[in-house]
Amino acid sequence: MTLEIRPVRGIGAIAVGDDLVDQICAAAPWLADGDVLIVTSKIVSKSEGNLVEVPADGPEREAARADALATETARVVARRGPTTIVQTHHGFVMAAAGIDASNVDKTHLVLLPADSDASARRLRAGFQARGLNVAVVISDTMGRTWRNGLTDVALGAAGIAPFRDHRGETDPYGNELAITQMAVIDELSAAGELVKGKIDNVPVAVVRGYLGSGPDDDGPGAVPLLRDAASDMFSLGTAEARAAGLRDAAQLPEGTHADLPGLPTDPDAVRRALRTVADHLARGTTVTEAHPFSPNGATAALHLQTTATNPAALMRLGADTHRLRVALAAESVASVALPHDDGIRLDLSGAPA
Amino acid sequence: MTLEIRPVRGIGAIAVGDDLVDQICAAAPWLADGDVLIVTSKIVSKSEGNLVEVPADGPEREAARADALATETARVVARRGPTTIVQTHHGFVMAAAGIDASNVDKTHLVLLPADSDASARRLRAGFQARGLNVAVVISDTMGRTWRNGLTDVALGAAGIAPFRDHRGETDPYGNELAITQMAVIDELSAAGELVKGKIDNVPVAVVRGYLGSGPDDDGPGAVPLLRDAASDMFSLGTAEARAAGLRDAAQLPEGTHADLPGLPTDPDAVRRALRTVADHLARGTTVTEAHPFSPNGATAALHLQTTATNPAALMRLGADTHRLRVALAAESVASVALPHDDGIRLDLSGAPA
Repeated sequence: MTLEIRPVRGIGAIAVGDDLVDQICAAAPWLADGDVLIVTSKIVSKSEGNLVEVPADGPEREAARADALATETARVVARRGPTTIVQTHHGFVMAAAGIDASNVDKTHLVLLPADSDASARRLRAGFQARGLNVAVVISDTMGRTWRNGLTDVALGAAGIAPFRDHRGETDPYGNELAITQMAVIDELSAAGELVKGKIDNVPVAVVRGYLGSGPDDDGPGAVPLLRDAASDMFSLGTAEARAAGLRDAAQLPEGTHADLPGLPTDPDAVRRALRTVADHLARGTTVTEAHPFSPNGATAALHLQTTATNPAALMRLGADTHRLRVALAAESVASVALPHDDGIRLDLSGAPA
Repeated sequence: MTLEIRPVRGIGAIAVGDDLVDQICAAAPWLADGDVLIVTSKIVSKSEGNLVEVPADGPEREAARADALATETARVVARRGPTTIVQTHHGFVMAAAGIDASNVDKTHLVLLPADSDASARRLRAGFQARGLNVAVVISDTMGRTWRNGLTDVALGAAGIAPFRDHRGETDPYGNELAITQMAVIDELSAAGELVKGKIDNVPVAVVRGYLGSGPDDDGPGAVPLLRDAASDMFSLGTAEARAAGLRDAAQLPEGTHADLPGLPTDPDAVRRALRTVADHLARGTTVTEAHPFSPNGATAALHLQTTATNPAALMRLGADTHRLRVALAAESVASVALPHDDGIRLDLSGAPA
């Protein structure tokens, strides 16, 4: 397979209601069946009127921009300084919800297309109506974790499978392939970006040679590329997740024996927790371990006592107990606190995975 | 600019010590000045002998694999089930440190090249010695956050700038571009992957047309693509960062008035913290607010008291205080606890940004 990636030049400024298929066909009369068109999302949004009006400058502009961001945001993923990374209602995780103020006049912001897969299908149908069987990928520029610089990825697609699936294939050595799914519409978007400029009106690139012939149907679009927050190991920024951990600690359930899972308590986990708090307990607090220990579903216990007996010392012992319970929770050890006149017993159990 | 992306077919199995430049030149006699070669890292590692020997199966194989992972790991970024994402000593964040068991016999694992930029420079020098002025990108397949499917990115480069920089450019509307740096060597790697197979021995792709002529020098390689953990908003997995937040809570400094920053305390932040703990305080605990309040550097205060006076109630009040201090910390409010016979006063201050 040899690919050719061509820019489509001569597409002018796009206004609301413009027929993109007309414009692209006029600029690229050489389009052929099986071509994959990589269309910058911005011209799709502009033609569909997915813009918001904003003041050209001043604090009102910033306020309008913040409003637009709030409207487009399903949840905030991370914030640092002026950067806000959110998951949009479409499911994309992007800085500023993909709202863009470039390549548009100063009184408008461009939003992402409302439904990029639907837009891709509409465009593909438009080309089909002109006798052209092509695939359409709607692309945008995104940042990513761990690596500097931006790349283009797919927001929507029609007429092309989002993945190339290697599951079940074996290599020449007989190993089954660990790599399963290549996100080819993201790679096509990246390839297309290489021939597009950011400011010289090349909003469309054509990849020729990737699809052997014209696609059979619209396919599932780009939605399969979206990983939901629950299955993402990086669903929150580190600082946000750390703050969530603090709130977890503030809300650590008091617990009762009925809640203790009754699973084996890992002595190493308990010792790690004790080391975590060692330098933070009040002077006079002592902790003794009881392993094994098994009444009431607890499989281990800790006894906290203080040498002093005044109210302040007892309150400090209570705070120390909460420190220790939180450190145990960080090690996946569940606990129940039993304050009594001589101190506090913590009954422990391993937590379900 | 029109690009052509060609696969290089006919490169056989690569063994330690093989001259990759020889092999590539033999398989692609059509190479020309200005071509960008996208070389799969695996054949670079194999030719350089960057392999480890492992048993073909059984628990010994798993142990050897775990050892190799530990050796390649600079820090663990996230773990879930069988997946471990680490930052390697090179600085890449990858599942299993990029160690791969595919396309190699069952008694070896392939590591990443020891220094991919140096490897790229060596290859480029080899082509130059044969009169060819090309650029070399060494690529590998990586997962990413938020999006399913894998894409190829650059591990090393020579003869090509890693970024195309748009800083300072203005669009036709006079807006300065917000998008600054496109990671073009990652996009070229992705483009190259489209014509490579995973199992049909196409380890090299050639991108023609991207560089106008032969590159002038080796350039900075791919290292500028690496974002260090300190400036990454996703330096840890969500679960790992949340556990770190629990440990932060366990180690929340006791604090003294000398440590209180003396900054204004946001009453809304205090109320959010109170709401966070409201359902988790012991029965009998009451909290009253004092705004403003300014002795000893504190700009607000909270008074915690309990209706009971027995030791267990006092210990519970201590635990409640720690809950509240942690909830305040999650809202960036610093606190000092002052237990006395009647209860506990928390002196508060805003925290530095």
